[in-house]
This record gives sequence, C-alpha cells and structure tokens, in this order.
Amino acid sequence: MKVAILGAGQLAQLLTHSAYQLGVETVCIAENDFDAILQQVKDCDVITLENENVDVALLEQLQAHKPVYPGSNTIAVAQERFLEKSLFKALDIPTPPFAKIDSLADLEAALSTIGVPAVLKTRRFGYDGKGQTVIKKLSEAKSAWELTGKNPAILEGFIDFDFEVSLIAARSVSGELIFYPLIKNTHRDGILRVSESPFEDVHLQQLAESYVQRLFEELNYVGVLGFEFFVKGDSLIANEIAPRVHNSGHLTIEGFNASQFENHLRAVLNLPLVKPILQAQTTMHNIIGAFPKLMPADYINCHVYDYGKESRPNRKVGHITQFKPF
Amino acid sequence: MKVAILGAGQLAQLLTHSAYQLGVETVCIAENDFDAILQQVKDCDVITLENENVDVALLEQLQAHKPVYPGSNTIAVAQERFLEKSLFKALDIPTPPFAKIDSLADLEAALSTIGVPAVLKTRRFGYDGKGQTVIKKLSEAKSAWELTGKNPAILEGFIDFDFEVSLIAARSVSGELIFYPLIKNTHRDGILRVSESPFEDVHLQQLAESYVQRLFEELNYVGVLGFEFFVKGDSLIANEIAPRVHNSGHLTIEGFNASQFENHLRAVLNLPLVKPILQAQTTMHNIIGAFPKLMPADYINCHVYDYGKESRPNRKVGHITQFKPF
Repeated sequence: MKVAILGAGQLAQLLTHSAYQLGVETVCIAENDFDAILQQVKDCDVITLENENVDVALLEQLQAHKPVYPGSNTIAVAQERFLEKSLFKALDIPTPPFAKIDSLADLEAALSTIGVPAVLKTRRFGYDGKGQTVIKKLSEAKSAWELTGKNPAILEGFIDFDFEVSLIAARSVSGELIFYPLIKNTHRDGILRVSESPFEDVHLQQLAESYVQRLFEELNYVGVLGFEFFVKGDSLIANEIAPRVHNSGHLTIEGFNASQFENHLRAVLNLPLVKPILQAQTTMHNIIGAFPKLMPADYINCHVYDYGKESRPNRKVGHITQFKPF
Repeated sequence: MKVAILGAGQLAQLLTHSAYQLGVETVCIAENDFDAILQQVKDCDVITLENENVDVALLEQLQAHKPVYPGSNTIAVAQERFLEKSLFKALDIPTPPFAKIDSLADLEAALSTIGVPAVLKTRRFGYDGKGQTVIKKLSEAKSAWELTGKNPAILEGFIDFDFEVSLIAARSVSGELIFYPLIKNTHRDGILRVSESPFEDVHLQQLAESYVQRLFEELNYVGVLGFEFFVKGDSLIANEIAPRVHNSGHLTIEGFNASQFENHLRAVLNLPLVKPILQAQTTMHNIIGAFPKLMPADYINCHVYDYGKESRPNRKVGHITQFKPF
C-alpha cells in the first residue's frame, strides 16, 4: 500500500514515521503542479494532505484519478472561515457570534451588533494566529480593516473562555469512528505552545464527540480531524477544524496504543481503526523558533522530535512530549 | 546528536526509526572499508553496530577515533562461539557441555565425552542456524565434520530444553542498567519464528538478570544486549548472546513505554535509560522468505513492518507484532 501526502512538512514526516509501522509507503509531495503531482501519485492507493490550504480546483482534478481523503468538499469549508462557521451554525454547533466582512461598512455594521472586543480574521490562509486582529474599541475598525489588507474577512465576537480543548477523531472509508479523549491546549501569541492529555470530563467529551460526529456525517469525512473548542463553563464553543492530523494530537504517539497518525493512515486506506486506549499521561511542548541544545536530563521520560527545519521566528521546529505511563 | 550504525539492514532501520523520536540523526554504513567509514562517522558522536560479524581489527582502528559501543572486546567474544561459551563458563553461567573442535580427531574425542545427540557449530559467522549440524550417532562424526567445511568449530551437547527465552537488557556509558521481562521464543529450522512477551517467572527473571549483569560488568558493556537461554525446569542454560538489539526484542516497540531501540540509542549516547513499563501483551511473528499480501483483517491490533527486502528463502523480510494493551 502506498499513500501520497500533499505537503512535506512535519505532519507529512510524522505520518511517514507512522506508516513504517503499517508496512505502508508514503510519498510526500511538495509540488503544486497538477501534472507533477499526477506523476507522483501514479502508484499510490490514495491521496491525503497535511495542510488545508491547497487549491480546491486542483483537488477536484486529482479526485477524478485517485481517491482524495478528506475530500475537496471538506477542504473548501475548512479553508474559508465564513463557510466553516456557517456550517457549524447549520449543524447546531455553538460558535462565537460572527459576520461576513467584505468592506469597512460591513465591519462597522457587524461591530455594532457583535460588540467589542471582537476578532477580525481573514477568511482564508490563516494559521498560528496569522491574519487576525483584535478590535477592542469601535474606533479601531478602520485600522483593523487596513491591517488585514482589506481582504475578505470574518468578524467574530471575542469569547472570554476558561480554556481551550481539542478533540482528535477519525472516520474511515467504511464509516468506522474513533475518538481520543479531549486534549487541553495553551496558546500564546496565537501559536499552540502546550497540549496535555487526557483532559477528562465526561460531559464535555460527549458534547465534543456529538459535534464531530455531526460534522463527519455532513461532510462524509474520511481521515483524522482536529476540532478546536473554547470551553466556557459546561459548554463548548467551536473555534475551528483542521481536516488533518493536528498539532495537539502529536502526544497521541506516546499517550495511546495507536497515534492519530496511525489512525489517519488506517482511515484513508480503509483498514480497521484502533480504538484509543490511554497508556500514559502526556504533555507536549512545541519548540518555536529555534531548536534548543538539550542536556541528558531533558531526555528523562521524554521523546524529542526535531523536524530538521531552519530556525525562524514563530516557526514550529520541533516538539517534546513528556510521558508518564500508568 | 548523531549515531553511526555499522550495517544497513533491518536493525539499522529500526534504530533509525526510533532515533527520530529522540531528535537523533543516524547514518547507516554498508561499507567495510576503514577510510570510507571514517569519512562517514566524522560528525557522529558514537559508533554502534547492528551485526556482530564485523572485523575486530577494523573496530579497534575505529575506536582510536570515536567511541564504539559495544566495544571490540565484546564483539571478539560474541563472534567466536568457543570464546563466548568459555566466558559464560568463567562467569559461572551454565552452558551445555562444549569442546573446541579443530580436527576430526578432536570431534571424535569430544563426542566420546559429550555423547550424542550433539551439535557441531562453526565457531564464526553462524546465524539463523547456519553452519550447524546435529550429530545423532557417533558414526556421523566424519560427515558432520565435512558438512561444516572442516572449519574451526565447537561441539555442544544437545539440550533437551523445555523452551527458549531471551533477556533484553541495556547498560549505558555511565553504567545505568535496565532489563525487560523475559521473552519466550519459538524457533523452526534454526530461525526465530515467534516471540511472546511478557514471560513472567520471578525466579528465571532474577537468574537471567544476574547472568547478564555479570557479563555486562566483565565486558564493561555499553548498549542493548540480547541473551538467549534454554529453559530446563527451573534453570537457564546459556545459548548465545547478541551484542546488539535483538530480533526477539522487536516487540518491545509495542509492549513497553520504551523499545530496545530507544534504550540502545540512549545507552550509547549516555542519555538516561527508560525503565521498561509493560503496556501491552505482544506476540511477534517473523515474516520469512516473502512478504505476504495482507488483508484489512490482518491489521487488527497489529503493526506490520516491511523491511523492503527482496524475497529470498529463509530471509527475514519483515515482522508483524500483535498487541493487546492492558
């Protein structure tokens, strides 16, 4: 079996690492050109992706030749914040109040309804807090609109949440479903810093699973999906979905009998999924910017992943997972 | 950190797979030429090996430039069955009766003492039952001697054992020690077919650990070592050592919080070792000769390792580990 991965970053790396344990080959494709991709996927069983910011028309072309999981319908939604939030709303999944913004007039009108503070986000190509501006006063509307480059945007009411969690879930070609326990996440400057597993709360777990299940069915989703939520009291408010393996799920490698990477490969290849069984309490720390020089003491009950990337401010260059087996 | 591995077979592959989780680079060296090796190990912290059948003089040359773990003293013993058995004897580790054989006369004399059945083994380059002949009648001495090519040999009394076990253990540069629970092994035609973990027997475990510890101290050993024993009643009889990660230990990937591969890398890099904590009951099946075409059902609670080798009779081309988490 062979899986083509569109993209060649750390998620493709980690999928490839996991693929070795399934006797599965991968090809990680950095090109964006249809003919170049088609050439490389020739002997592959299926195409998947590590990044939702791919050209939907290109995916549709590829789908005519090979199965692409998750499909272009999902990617189209996940890469456009207004479509994404509108889908949540249609599925009765709570979201912050939001409005579509295509002009300064739209923004001013929306601010008068949603109020401040609010967050103006570009509708496309946002990740790690990029393309986001917090508006604290109504008078900041014009400067915020200019800061986002007057690009198609969405205004979202600012949620004064207690903390953030993510649900990692998978659905296979044949419709089999698995869910990991919720993961508690800490962001700083819009970038995920720390994830902790398991976050145990029966009520929130059931709620999150029901939301993801609704989404899976609506999209006929195949693969792993990461769903980020704000927690406020005993409710979950949808932040965003990642239609792929998710940064917060890296700790599933050490924490469970099967990682998100293994279950993603199983899902897209229509192999039986592995129901996650907790094996260790885990904390993952992203390494941002530059890889530190580590000492032996740093390796106690730790795995250290170095993505081999050049240092760059705010770049995810690796992660460290501490684990405490039960 | 970077580790050079002499050899580029499946053990080097599995070490490399594990190295990714420690942020450690590896270079797997297939060459046997000193200058070519020296060139490749230049930026490495340490040299290790996946096969004991390397030239000891070459290792000694390399040791003048870089640490080599395990060292040439161990390799010299492990690649020569008479030295190996003599060391066991010197350390009061029970062995089958054995004698050094350099001629047909030696063999006939030894057979009269040791009796039949007995096993004639070449002293060097034996693996997977190669270079071994069972002698069932005294009259077979001549044909057996010819079958082994009249090479330097050892005669060992045949042990009518109950079953076979192996102990996987590691010792780091600083002398830290860890032991995995015993693994029960089944061979056929001299080739390991199935390994099962854990094999729980407090008495045999203690015995095996004490034998390995004696050996580690005598050799000032660094790295993982696999020690194969015959079990007969409540005693262990030493069969052989593998001064490296061991085929029976592949199931430590799924069975424990840290695999033999991780602990080997930690040991040679002088990082803290990970005390093994059992996470799953595991059974490993070697895939011999040709890789089968697998069906989805074969992937239930299984990891499948395909070494990417061409099919060849009696060649280990992969292994499958079934695991049942606790």
